[in-house]
Amino acid sequence: MIYLDNSATTYPKPHSVICELSHAAKKYGANSGRGGYRMAMETSEKIYAARELIANFFGCQNGRNVIFTYNCTMALNMAIKGVAVKNCHFIISDIEHNAVLRPIEKLSSDGFCEYSVAEISDSDNTTVNNFKKNIKKNTRAIICTGASNVFGILTPYRKLAKLAHENNILFIMDCAQIGGIFNINMLTDDIDILCCAGHKGLYGPTGTGILLLKDELLLNTIIEGGTGSNSSNSRQPDFFPDRFESGTPNIPGIIALCKGIEFVTGRGIENIYRHESKCIDYFKKEIIKNKAIELYFNDNNPQNAPIVAFNVEGYHSEEIAQHLAKDDICIRAGLHCAPLAHKKMNTLEKGAVRISPSVFTKKSDMDFLINSLKKLQK
Amino acid sequence: MIYLDNSATTYPKPHSVICELSHAAKKYGANSGRGGYRMAMETSEKIYAARELIANFFGCQNGRNVIFTYNCTMALNMAIKGVAVKNCHFIISDIEHNAVLRPIEKLSSDGFCEYSVAEISDSDNTTVNNFKKNIKKNTRAIICTGASNVFGILTPYRKLAKLAHENNILFIMDCAQIGGIFNINMLTDDIDILCCAGHKGLYGPTGTGILLLKDELLLNTIIEGGTGSNSSNSRQPDFFPDRFESGTPNIPGIIALCKGIEFVTGRGIENIYRHESKCIDYFKKEIIKNKAIELYFNDNNPQNAPIVAFNVEGYHSEEIAQHLAKDDICIRAGLHCAPLAHKKMNTLEKGAVRISPSVFTKKSDMDFLINSLKKLQK
Repeated sequence: MIYLDNSATTYPKPHSVICELSHAAKKYGANSGRGGYRMAMETSEKIYAARELIANFFGCQNGRNVIFTYNCTMALNMAIKGVAVKNCHFIISDIEHNAVLRPIEKLSSDGFCEYSVAEISDSDNTTVNNFKKNIKKNTRAIICTGASNVFGILTPYRKLAKLAHENNILFIMDCAQIGGIFNINMLTDDIDILCCAGHKGLYGPTGTGILLLKDELLLNTIIEGGTGSNSSNSRQPDFFPDRFESGTPNIPGIIALCKGIEFVTGRGIENIYRHESKCIDYFKKEIIKNKAIELYFNDNNPQNAPIVAFNVEGYHSEEIAQHLAKDDICIRAGLHCAPLAHKKMNTLEKGAVRISPSVFTKKSDMDFLINSLKKLQK
Repeated sequence: MIYLDNSATTYPKPHSVICELSHAAKKYGANSGRGGYRMAMETSEKIYAARELIANFFGCQNGRNVIFTYNCTMALNMAIKGVAVKNCHFIISDIEHNAVLRPIEKLSSDGFCEYSVAEISDSDNTTVNNFKKNIKKNTRAIICTGASNVFGILTPYRKLAKLAHENNILFIMDCAQIGGIFNINMLTDDIDILCCAGHKGLYGPTGTGILLLKDELLLNTIIEGGTGSNSSNSRQPDFFPDRFESGTPNIPGIIALCKGIEFVTGRGIENIYRHESKCIDYFKKEIIKNKAIELYFNDNNPQNAPIVAFNVEGYHSEEIAQHLAKDDICIRAGLHCAPLAHKKMNTLEKGAVRISPSVFTKKSDMDFLINSLKKLQK
């Protein structure tokens, strides 16, 4: 099996991550943040250590500001609806995932807020200007992905964060696609709220998402419940992380996620990026010779996230996926939950085939893919 | 270690559950509901089989109406806010957990809806009448737990469901404490929405919650995002389960939860209830001789969930917990995220020590606990 769908979830996971799931469920078997007995305290300490590890990884100044969620989508919903105030305005990029677009559209269709879509251009200055033009008096936040989950297009997120803060606007970043592949530092990159999946570039298990807050933003909550704290109060507590973590967390998932992050740190983010980019560059170099294949990438913008999308003349992207699946090549085709990006790249109708390697991808995997594509055109 | 905090989370988990976490993360390593390749299809099928298993377990008529969530709290938030309409009214019981009280209180303090609290009495008829008295023209739902998570008090949920439906009101049930211990059947018990934790009486891992819908209630959503379906549409799809499952689910958690449910089915719910009740009855019989111990249970209501709470004269509940922790006895004290129940039982100030056995609890565990309590009073 050749697995090239790492933008959906990385596979395989490091051995340490796989093992830790069962191990943690056994060793840290109590609920965290509730009881005062030994195993409950050990479990709580382990979860707190996870917060510290993640805070450190993303340059977040306080472990208490690391919130565990079900997935990145839940984190983004908590961020967006958490900062939304009645009649406010948001600006999102034109390559956002449905995890950003749909919550924003929901707020908008409920008549709660409005939003504008700003174009990501080849030139960073033009992009920043596109966002700037959309700023209104009531603009509450710029919400932007680090990179397109379909086409790998990078956004000038540092410059957009700067623009936001010059205008007293919050900057919320979706790092699902670039966490663990690019160095992201909330402090130096000036990100107010960072959302990330645990099971993609951080190599953790599914069922883990993270929401990081630069300051103690007292966001509105979308989920309330038992926090094991201030229990006599029928209102959600104000303090962190309790305010945003109601009910029992995914304890083995969070502990296994730490093993994933340790794996990434051990390999080195720059090395991972270099390796994955090499895979993509090799594929592009080989495939560009083939006139029937339309590669969606931009020569003018050499630094991309290591993701590439394409189509083959005469085929729907789903047909290409089916053909590759017969050769046991795992890739995703279709619309990738990102209608804005497909609209931008004119692939709303037939979608696109996406190739996303991981640190485990080999050159021979790319050769296998290239050969399988050759067969398609015979 | 004597673990008697199974109402917080069951420990240990069955061997099959522990093993499945790592196994599933390896074998079903693709994202579900997205790709069309072999491993993605196998993962999707496995998740669908989990829906069918759970639907069957709770008498839900359609696997598509089984929604996976992060925990029971998230399921309850989705249910409550999903049915809420502007200016509606809810009735909750006076033993609800903060997982019900806090979302309701949030809606109320936002000026979105109002709510009444109905008293659970020793007599089912009185209880039903207490709810009935609170019904208004705009009452949208009765929300009721199966049993108090602190005192084990059972609610006449079947009768309350009947009352609700006679008055065209929805019935939402929190089964966190009794799922896997009592037979619950959505169809015959007439439950519209059932919420349950996966990691308590179902013996699954933490990070798993379930929301079951009797009919295809087109609830409002609190989380929107990528569903792998209708991707070109910026609105959340209407169909099930996609409407309520955005982003990547906890795949190993869900698959391991199935092992937990198979374990429960194998042991037999009635046998589990009988075993746990025997542990509680034995403890009560022994401890009632001790005049310094105040047991919170009701002689008039013989059938309780197998949970018991107590205090010892001259001690705060947390002091008792600390003492027991020194003997490596794992129990929870304090307020148990249930202020209404503590108010009812007059334990808001000092909380209560809770004993909650599982199918793995032995008579010798109860003896150890009883002896440790004796030492406390010397």
